[in-house]
Amino acid sequence: MHKIGIIGLGHVGTTVAHILLLKGLADELVMIDQNAKKVEAEYYDFADSFARTEHSAVLKCNDYGELADADIVITSFGDIEATAKTGDRFAELPINKKSAVEVGRKIKESGFNGILLNISNPCDAIVNELQKATGMPHNRIFGTGTFLDTARLQRAVGAHFGEAPQNVSGFVLGEHGNSQFSAWSTVRLDGQPISQFADAGKVDLEKLDEEIRQSAFTVVAGKGYTSTAIATCAVRIVEAIFNDKHEFMASVYLEQFGTYIGYPAVIGKNGVEKIVPVKLPADEAEKLAASAKTIKDKEEA
Amino acid sequence: MHKIGIIGLGHVGTTVAHILLLKGLADELVMIDQNAKKVEAEYYDFADSFARTEHSAVLKCNDYGELADADIVITSFGDIEATAKTGDRFAELPINKKSAVEVGRKIKESGFNGILLNISNPCDAIVNELQKATGMPHNRIFGTGTFLDTARLQRAVGAHFGEAPQNVSGFVLGEHGNSQFSAWSTVRLDGQPISQFADAGKVDLEKLDEEIRQSAFTVVAGKGYTSTAIATCAVRIVEAIFNDKHEFMASVYLEQFGTYIGYPAVIGKNGVEKIVPVKLPADEAEKLAASAKTIKDKEEA
Amino acid sequence: MHKIGIIGLGHVGTTVAHILLLKGLADELVMIDQNAKKVEAEYYDFADSFARTEHSAVLKCNDYGELADADIVITSFGDIEATAKTGDRFAELPINKKSAVEVGRKIKESGFNGILLNISNPCDAIVNELQKATGMPHNRIFGTGTFLDTARLQRAVGAHFGEAPQNVSGFVLGEHGNSQFSAWSTVRLDGQPISQFADAGKVDLEKLDEEIRQSAFTVVAGKGYTSTAIATCAVRIVEAIFNDKHEFMASVYLEQFGTYIGYPAVIGKNGVEKIVPVKLPADEAEKLAASAKTIKDKEEA
Amino acid sequence: MHKIGIIGLGHVGTTVAHILLLKGLADELVMIDQNAKKVEAEYYDFADSFARTEHSAVLKCNDYGELADADIVITSFGDIEATAKTGDRFAELPINKKSAVEVGRKIKESGFNGILLNISNPCDAIVNELQKATGMPHNRIFGTGTFLDTARLQRAVGAHFGEAPQNVSGFVLGEHGNSQFSAWSTVRLDGQPISQFADAGKVDLEKLDEEIRQSAFTVVAGKGYTSTAIATCAVRIVEAIFNDKHEFMASVYLEQFGTYIGYPAVIGKNGVEKIVPVKLPADEAEKLAASAKTIKDKEEA
Repeated sequence: MHKIGIIGLGHVGTTVAHILLLKGLADELVMIDQNAKKVEAEYYDFADSFARTEHSAVLKCNDYGELADADIVITSFGDIEATAKTGDRFAELPINKKSAVEVGRKIKESGFNGILLNISNPCDAIVNELQKATGMPHNRIFGTGTFLDTARLQRAVGAHFGEAPQNVSGFVLGEHGNSQFSAWSTVRLDGQPISQFADAGKVDLEKLDEEIRQSAFTVVAGKGYTSTAIATCAVRIVEAIFNDKHEFMASVYLEQFGTYIGYPAVIGKNGVEKIVPVKLPADEAEKLAASAKTIKDKEEA
Repeated sequence: MHKIGIIGLGHVGTTVAHILLLKGLADELVMIDQNAKKVEAEYYDFADSFARTEHSAVLKCNDYGELADADIVITSFGDIEATAKTGDRFAELPINKKSAVEVGRKIKESGFNGILLNISNPCDAIVNELQKATGMPHNRIFGTGTFLDTARLQRAVGAHFGEAPQNVSGFVLGEHGNSQFSAWSTVRLDGQPISQFADAGKVDLEKLDEEIRQSAFTVVAGKGYTSTAIATCAVRIVEAIFNDKHEFMASVYLEQFGTYIGYPAVIGKNGVEKIVPVKLPADEAEKLAASAKTIKDKEEA
Repeated sequence: MHKIGIIGLGHVGTTVAHILLLKGLADELVMIDQNAKKVEAEYYDFADSFARTEHSAVLKCNDYGELADADIVITSFGDIEATAKTGDRFAELPINKKSAVEVGRKIKESGFNGILLNISNPCDAIVNELQKATGMPHNRIFGTGTFLDTARLQRAVGAHFGEAPQNVSGFVLGEHGNSQFSAWSTVRLDGQPISQFADAGKVDLEKLDEEIRQSAFTVVAGKGYTSTAIATCAVRIVEAIFNDKHEFMASVYLEQFGTYIGYPAVIGKNGVEKIVPVKLPADEAEKLAASAKTIKDKEEA
Repeated sequence: MHKIGIIGLGHVGTTVAHILLLKGLADELVMIDQNAKKVEAEYYDFADSFARTEHSAVLKCNDYGELADADIVITSFGDIEATAKTGDRFAELPINKKSAVEVGRKIKESGFNGILLNISNPCDAIVNELQKATGMPHNRIFGTGTFLDTARLQRAVGAHFGEAPQNVSGFVLGEHGNSQFSAWSTVRLDGQPISQFADAGKVDLEKLDEEIRQSAFTVVAGKGYTSTAIATCAVRIVEAIFNDKHEFMASVYLEQFGTYIGYPAVIGKNGVEKIVPVKLPADEAEKLAASAKTIKDKEEA
């Protein structure tokens, strides 16, 4: 049986739940939110759809005890309005840090023994807090990190050349936030280094970089939050865990920096099966270190 | 190629778009909304997900001209706050009626020659207006009507007996609104008439009926709108059209009442392929006529 | 985690495996067959597809020990040539009965503690044998029975009226074999009794009945076996178990007859959650009893 | 509407049909085979499943006239026994070449104006023949080529390192046959050149290469044919065409060699949207030219 818990039923958590149910990935889904009426509303909206869907699931509401035998818990609590107003995901830190301590404690008390995937922002700092609160080993607790930002890079590069994002490989690294950076040394289109296309004047990487970093805020400005793409990324990680897929995704705990940070890792049934070493040129290695420092500084502020 | 237009990108329209994309049902998706920034936001949120999804689609924004060769157009414009505040979908009528005239005219001008499925509330009255504005034949324009309410009935009856909604057949008929009614004479569980279970004291139909009618408002009260279940129903109709499935769904134009109303019809590639005659006892036939009258009276008010 | 075992990798077993993998229903799949080279071949053919599929799975070959923690085991061993040659599924009985004893013993020895779904023919007799060999309780071991034949009835009735099989309800009951019968008293189209349409001269039920019974052999005559439809039915039951769906399917053990037989039952995470009592007129009740006798007589012959 | 034709309903064609139906990719499916009873058998086996599947389709049998408005035609005729016996796909050439002329003529006469995807072996030679027979432009007719062999390379490299095939990029190029080669210069694992891992003694590329080339014959030896993986690859190309995905796949017509050959190309709604130039070191470029010569020599023999 696939049993999944979602803590925080805002736009992201609800969209994660919806995709999981649509794809038949959850046999039991535990939905938890401070707002009990919201959970009840989503319960009925999902249950009402089951007469018309291929898959269904047993839905449980606001019961941390149900997490005891859950395979995966996804944390998606937050206060998007703070981020939307300031354009900085760290605006959510004070409130989400407090939530992380409380949520982490309740997860621990439930006896939960699965894998925890954090989406709550600022993603890297919050997963640091959740790890401390739960005491879980680093391979079984991690965040979506820059897995979404990498998807945006793939979309942006692909779109620039009229190709599918699948034809683009490489990584956005660092904080899931303003200090993140496209590691252009790792980026390839159709198997060729992107630098080749840049040198030939076919693409302006700095311009593209800026577009990628800002696109989340275009979405937030237009709809008040982001939901579909981040939820899709989270579900892909869930699939990799269940299928023991050993595909790479992020963000993981890097010993050398002492923090979680957007960095590729091979995900399987044990969570982080392996961290993929990325060879970076000096300037990109510095950016990564700086981004790690940003996460830690802000978190401790 | 599957080309679908969605007019009105509120919670419902966006959820319809998301399900269509997730299931690979749209090769081209035309998203139209008065709020251009909202459309742009959804464009990026969907496009950012395509690096992580099995299916993708070509997305077009706010261009009625693109409807010329669309297969299906879904209308999901509206003002949910009016319904939420009053508890009556007819509160949206004045504003949506005006929108229907304008949207209908633009659809007609686009040269659209496919099938129009209306979700906008009050569903029956608005599809009446859209039909007038577009001049489309009744088989190619219809609404979701009580297809969702029937799903709710299936959920509620199934849940009462600890069974799947799929084990329940029968219909909620009439207005997708307060004058709708569960046509209990048509309802069966595990192939047996529900009256049998009621007579045996195993279920109180009046209580269940009230629960079904109110469940939408429980959802609205908790999350401010309904989205998942109604969007799921709409997508099922889209699938029946593309697959030429000849499965029954609603709501259609009934000549004898001169209005659209929630009533089962066989849906296929030509839209309404056949209206399914439902044998009703006198009291239920009266309720249906009364509900038709309610739709027409309110619409003309 | 979803762990499924398939014993017997002929056309049916392989098709079941393929659908399970395509739909992402198996995280681990244990494939067992006497022909080790066949298992290895399917292993590579599936594994080679995983670079191009959304889902993947961990594949295990020919290891009964892996069934210890499997959720579901599907038995699909058999000798289709015997059935194809004679036009009677009981031609496979002598060989499959022997297999059932051996397979059942090995399943028991593995420590398997999940749910067993039998497809091997003659379905009802073989599940009787497997139950004896494994000693499993009747709710956790059952067969596909007439779930496929019912699908054929739905297809045939629907096709006759130009409607979807989903618009047809009712059951084929009895042996999954020559003594089965369409329980026309239970069959409805668009919610109306089929007898109504028959009385109006719109359908000849005897003719349809014969067509339904023979359609399997048309398939066998043309391709040498049946695979897609039966595998699809088996996977639907798997989904109902994982999703704890409580939807009705068959075939189950009926105490009054002392045998497994095609009869509707509500399937959930515990296997058979409830047997659905079907009210039959005298002639159909007799046919059911006769069919049960046929199963037992042949089995003991 | 999605209308697809399949010519040749052997194991591969039938599996392609099954995947298309399962994924809801075909609204109308035209099945053509010399063996009319086989087509009828598959018709019923698919139709019988539609009462239990989410999607259905309108199925048409053995009517070339139906291809007039088809979007895509897949050719999968052949004589697998010839390949199985000799271990060389070119053993099928004489018979399939004759079929290609006849099938091509009938496709042309039907007025077909869509995209043709060839699977029949030897894939490159047969698509050469089909192109001549139909007179279709090279962008609208092409083959699966080494798209499957590349999947096998991804599987083999991934498996060697305990990672997902998705973590492996690069290409197998040339004939879909014995003269094909892994273009190791293009292959990367986790974004790093495979040569790095080979130099570090972590993988023996020659051994892996041999394994990849032979794996098809392991499958053929064990089950008598290959079906799942090749059908999966074909369906992925179908999806790229419908979704206008612009993802790269193969095999295409290369002007410099005057033949179709396994080589990456960006596939979209117009078929081959762009050929992806692959930078090859001298030895690999020679292998490609030699493979092209092999195809042409054998074809003309």
